[in-house]
Amino acid sequence: MYTLLRQDAHCDARRGRLETAHGTVELPAFMPVGTLGTVKGVELEQLRATGAEMILGNTYHLSLRPGEDVVRSLGGLHKFCGWTGPILTDSGGFQIFSLAKIMNIDEQGAVFRSHIDGDKIELPPERAVKIQEALGSDIAMVLDHVVALPNDRKTLEDAMLRSVRWAKRCKDAADHPYQKLFAIVQGGLDPALRKHCAELLAELDFPGYAIGGLSVGETPQEMYDALDFTLPFMPVDKPRYLMGVGKPEDILNAILRGVDLFDCVMPTRNGRNAQAFTDDGPLRLRNEKYRQDDRPLDESCPCPACKRSRGYLRHLFMADEMLGPILLTIHNLTYYQHLVARARNAIEQNRFAEFYRTQMGRLIRTPADVESEFRTDQ
Amino acid sequence: MYTLLRQDAHCDARRGRLETAHGTVELPAFMPVGTLGTVKGVELEQLRATGAEMILGNTYHLSLRPGEDVVRSLGGLHKFCGWTGPILTDSGGFQIFSLAKIMNIDEQGAVFRSHIDGDKIELPPERAVKIQEALGSDIAMVLDHVVALPNDRKTLEDAMLRSVRWAKRCKDAADHPYQKLFAIVQGGLDPALRKHCAELLAELDFPGYAIGGLSVGETPQEMYDALDFTLPFMPVDKPRYLMGVGKPEDILNAILRGVDLFDCVMPTRNGRNAQAFTDDGPLRLRNEKYRQDDRPLDESCPCPACKRSRGYLRHLFMADEMLGPILLTIHNLTYYQHLVARARNAIEQNRFAEFYRTQMGRLIRTPADVESEFRTDQ
Repeated sequence: MYTLLRQDAHCDARRGRLETAHGTVELPAFMPVGTLGTVKGVELEQLRATGAEMILGNTYHLSLRPGEDVVRSLGGLHKFCGWTGPILTDSGGFQIFSLAKIMNIDEQGAVFRSHIDGDKIELPPERAVKIQEALGSDIAMVLDHVVALPNDRKTLEDAMLRSVRWAKRCKDAADHPYQKLFAIVQGGLDPALRKHCAELLAELDFPGYAIGGLSVGETPQEMYDALDFTLPFMPVDKPRYLMGVGKPEDILNAILRGVDLFDCVMPTRNGRNAQAFTDDGPLRLRNEKYRQDDRPLDESCPCPACKRSRGYLRHLFMADEMLGPILLTIHNLTYYQHLVARARNAIEQNRFAEFYRTQMGRLIRTPADVESEFRTDQ
Repeated sequence: MYTLLRQDAHCDARRGRLETAHGTVELPAFMPVGTLGTVKGVELEQLRATGAEMILGNTYHLSLRPGEDVVRSLGGLHKFCGWTGPILTDSGGFQIFSLAKIMNIDEQGAVFRSHIDGDKIELPPERAVKIQEALGSDIAMVLDHVVALPNDRKTLEDAMLRSVRWAKRCKDAADHPYQKLFAIVQGGLDPALRKHCAELLAELDFPGYAIGGLSVGETPQEMYDALDFTLPFMPVDKPRYLMGVGKPEDILNAILRGVDLFDCVMPTRNGRNAQAFTDDGPLRLRNEKYRQDDRPLDESCPCPACKRSRGYLRHLFMADEMLGPILLTIHNLTYYQHLVARARNAIEQNRFAEFYRTQMGRLIRTPADVESEFRTDQ
């Protein structure tokens, strides 16, 4: 299912390929988040035009609305939402941690209250697998026990070891004609725990591995350090997925260290809030300075937002027009896809480290640049 | 600018063509409403795919946000919003009547407070023309004095005669290289006033004529009657535009009587509220009965909403996903465009009256059908 095509000669960045029942994904890849069976505000044709090959669906959300029984009866997630390419579903572990009201987590599984209607829901690892099988995603994730950072070593170790036992139970429960199950390495910011977890999961021989429990409050440097002491213990011949990350600079840093796959709500959520990503850092479109600005967000971007002026995009946000969030979401997704496409191209030419340095130099702007962006009449 | 291509042999329906600086419009035509420089939630490519040839912009709204100065400095309304086809702008007369807080209307013009920030705005007829010239629409409308229905004859007559004087002032003020100015027939539900207004305006020789002041509280039959006693006095060699109308059955009734052009917020506004138009009447997608319905809204519709199940569309609305309003707006606009395309085709074959009878028989459903549509858990 995974092929390592090329290892960059000057850094740990790698060019790979993932084959799924619904098509091929060129790696490194970024997955737009389609929480409830739709990438918010983006129609399928527009989504394909951004360059996205695989999208993510949230098992927690879909199991609450419309319910996996409805999705299954309407033909599974692909047919339900109309996306014919690969789909990865998470297990719900992170949403239980971040959204739900947890009632109890013990060896048996998680018990929590829905953030929609307060219903009590029991989620043992086996059920997390069965829900994802009902959804019919191409890649499913094991249920993991996510804890906040920072945290004491005992809590981190217990949650990590439980996550490994749950991963084994998920593997034993899995029974689907084409769905592949990825494991998730936990262990917080503790090098020994991350190493131990990666090694225990490697023994279980999953078709892919994720790094979980990051982007939950630690600094960027702490996250990069965690990648440095975790990735060397993850199998080289399996895809590596950094869950829920991140900013363009985070993605470049993770690719530099050998990560293959990403998902994050930033391009979509920030787009809905009038923030546009560019190589020179984000623009805040509500800023008064864009009122009569006839330039596009980015001269070289082929997306429909960049066929308009910044002044028009600002108008859409000031007038609360849906098209503002729609266009900026499409722009940001196009930007993220273009970023990973350029990364793939650079790796193929053994020059990812150079691409990384150039991009980081532009992305990380001076405080004065950033202040100018926030100086607004709104 | 207008060509009468064919008069149906068995009714007053007519097939025409309108040529503008930004392209040709086949008549009868329906214009989607793009109030603030965007048809809410619909990207340009999607809008073109519905079959729309001309869109409408609202002068009142655009003059408040972003202001006609901003639109002009960003290249005019076409460049501003990216729509390269024909655009018609209204004059603001109807919005002053329906949205703004009117302070005074006298011979000089209207004085009102903005519904956005309460600013006092003076709008003499000449300024309504100059704003539309700054926007650069292909067709501009004269400023008219709209009054509520029912109303006493004196009020209706005064408003009608003032509208004629204002139309003359608009014509005298107009000075734009390609923009054409259409006049608006007023006179409420009074046959003599409508006839008199149509004749006075015909003498002024405008390139097109609208019927205004309808769809403001009268019954459908009263509106059809008004068309019957107004249209015979409007020039045959000029396009006839029924402003702000309407339901599919209203459009069919008006085409039957010789109307060429329509605009209405119903397909877009109702789409955002989960109502889908079909030949068999509207569906309300929040209805519980669609929860696991795997059928499309309409088997024969080529729109992206009809590539999904009713169950999926219902889910989008129940989960407050933007894609629900987007898809139903696109479906409804596709439905309206398909309706007028079929009307044009029927007229070319002298069988519009037959098409009208067939469609009306399906659209006007029994009370039991309608009740079933409203029986919902929401």
